Amino acid sequence: MGKVEIVRNSLPMSGGDGPNSYSKNSHLQRRTTSLLKEKIDKLILEKLNAKTLISSDSNTFRIADLGCATGPNTFFLVDDIIKSIETSLRKSNSSKPEFLVFFNDLPQNDFNTLFTFLPQDRSYFAVGVPGSFYGRVLPQSSVHIVVTVGATHWLSSVPKEVLDKSSKAWNKGKVHYSNAAEEVLKAYRDQFGRDMEKFLEARAKEIVSGGLLVVGMCGIPKGMPFSNLTDSIMYTSMADVLTQMHSEGLISEEQVDTFNIPIYSASPEEVTVLVEKNGCFTVESMELMDPTAWLKRPMNVEDVRHWMVCIKATMGSLFINHFGEHLLNDVFDRLTVKLVGLTEKIESSYREKVMLFFALQRK
Amino acid sequence: MGKVEIVRNSLPMSGGDGPNSYSKNSHLQRRTTSLLKEKIDKLILEKLNAKTLISSDSNTFRIADLGCATGPNTFFLVDDIIKSIETSLRKSNSSKPEFLVFFNDLPQNDFNTLFTFLPQDRSYFAVGVPGSFYGRVLPQSSVHIVVTVGATHWLSSVPKEVLDKSSKAWNKGKVHYSNAAEEVLKAYRDQFGRDMEKFLEARAKEIVSGGLLVVGMCGIPKGMPFSNLTDSIMYTSMADVLTQMHSEGLISEEQVDTFNIPIYSASPEEVTVLVEKNGCFTVESMELMDPTAWLKRPMNVEDVRHWMVCIKATMGSLFINHFGEHLLNDVFDRLTVKLVGLTEKIESSYREKVMLFFALQRK
Repeated sequence: MGKVEIVRNSLPMSGGDGPNSYSKNSHLQRRTTSLLKEKIDKLILEKLNAKTLISSDSNTFRIADLGCATGPNTFFLVDDIIKSIETSLRKSNSSKPEFLVFFNDLPQNDFNTLFTFLPQDRSYFAVGVPGSFYGRVLPQSSVHIVVTVGATHWLSSVPKEVLDKSSKAWNKGKVHYSNAAEEVLKAYRDQFGRDMEKFLEARAKEIVSGGLLVVGMCGIPKGMPFSNLTDSIMYTSMADVLTQMHSEGLISEEQVDTFNIPIYSASPEEVTVLVEKNGCFTVESMELMDPTAWLKRPMNVEDVRHWMVCIKATMGSLFINHFGEHLLNDVFDRLTVKLVGLTEKIESSYREKVMLFFALQRK
Repeated sequence: MGKVEIVRNSLPMSGGDGPNSYSKNSHLQRRTTSLLKEKIDKLILEKLNAKTLISSDSNTFRIADLGCATGPNTFFLVDDIIKSIETSLRKSNSSKPEFLVFFNDLPQNDFNTLFTFLPQDRSYFAVGVPGSFYGRVLPQSSVHIVVTVGATHWLSSVPKEVLDKSSKAWNKGKVHYSNAAEEVLKAYRDQFGRDMEKFLEARAKEIVSGGLLVVGMCGIPKGMPFSNLTDSIMYTSMADVLTQMHSEGLISEEQVDTFNIPIYSASPEEVTVLVEKNGCFTVESMELMDPTAWLKRPMNVEDVRHWMVCIKATMGSLFINHFGEHLLNDVFDRLTVKLVGLTEKIESSYREKVMLFFALQRK
């Protein structure tokens, strides 16, 4: 083996367990993750031959959660998976294995908080894996199930064309490809293609034959303009807030023009093409879901406030890195006021199937 | 498997990379560790059948460093081990494996600092393992070499008899069993026996047949009184400093009487008995070394100062936990002054073989 290629470009979720932290502000993500539980259960029972996998491998079942942040959502997810595997093994009269869980995130992630909050009564060995999942993070054939929820829509970096004044993709005054020039969308899409290619290459090496790769991420129906979606309202409002703050002399024009959120929503069709190009996996599931299916009543002002708290915990470090820590609260206070005023518009837009769920099996 | 037993009693090295941190103040430990390099090299070449171990195990060689702290010493140690294994494999014409390194320490250890300082050009996959090595931290048969340097002399906790006013082992006015009642020594020795028993039981499960367990820790020749050693001068001075601080009203008598350093120096003979009792290992090496063999001239005042900086980084959290952060510098400033005044006495005592090195092979 040569040197391990290390990718470090992106930024982690907000660390610690304070009022702005991801660990305290990830309930929405939890709700969304719980929608996947049934699907993951079914996949494990129907597609994974857990008995064969562990018996050929020292009776240890190995699970990885990529982009686990600081918890606690990752702990719920891992618990659900272990319960499903135990059910599957009971059905095949297998002895109980030991479980090893690899918790992966960027090296800058707050692993100290993650380790502090590890459930004391857990039934698995827990290890932390620092590194970008756009490169290798684990040895060859070392893991039986890899899950990643809410992470692979984060690009490895902002596409460079978007930051290039001389490019047609120069994204002046905007923070995302939503409502931007076609070239901006193309730059994001190309970046996602390159990133997902690397992601699949790395996982193909790490996952054992017969193992599963399960992904939940931002998605969009093929051909639907992003401007139809709720997140588009948020990104447009963000750009408005930043422009306003520039006009008040709080930030420079340059800062506004060079700030972009490196998140891409993929369609099932484009992911399928990338999986086929990779060639190491079969597609066992590929579908779009409504990530707010758990919300049975119309969205209200409190929901919007809560949404913003979660977004702040998720994207906070992007803003801190670009504008400085002192402006974080100001940006999000303004953004919250703006979006609270748009609650009705948001309610009418958000029931789209914008969570992409897919499961692949390693050939 | 039942619930994983989790042991959490002790305290970690000082975190971060500031002026009092372990990561910035562990040069002495580095010097000492480097004395082990040649011995570990020899063991790997002569005792370890690396080719057989990896070919039966998906071509990945797995190494664990238990009690790794925040680096950088653990990185030097791991690099040396990997180079030795590569040499061994070249000699047997084997293909290059991938390496996975488990960096273990207590959950309160500063893993964020450890991960930040991981060498960028490393040739291994790195994971962090939070947990006390007096319990299981890794799955069964999951590792080929376990090393632990400067960690297993730390007991899992202060022996409870030493804190019990009604016990003959009540260690009033002292911080260690050095120069204390025979019952205090016995309480420490018994605690070490129980801890090492658990340590060996856990490692016997985790290490593959044919794998190695390599330990460097505080040691002492059988029958030698601890009061002969340099560390005894330090512990006596510590007690003097605390008594003085009590007389100045800075700390209570109760605080002085209940403060004990949970470190035990074992003889080769008592470790051998524990290994034989465990029954899962053969003893490949068991010897005492002079940890200051690298210092070729007499110790001077600067050496003593440097020693104290390293001790502060190592034991700082014990003092902070017991006396509060505000007294840490005061304690160590006084201790340094005291020990600087004893440089000649220290020089005449410290050339003893007080590092115990042993290597076991899993049957």
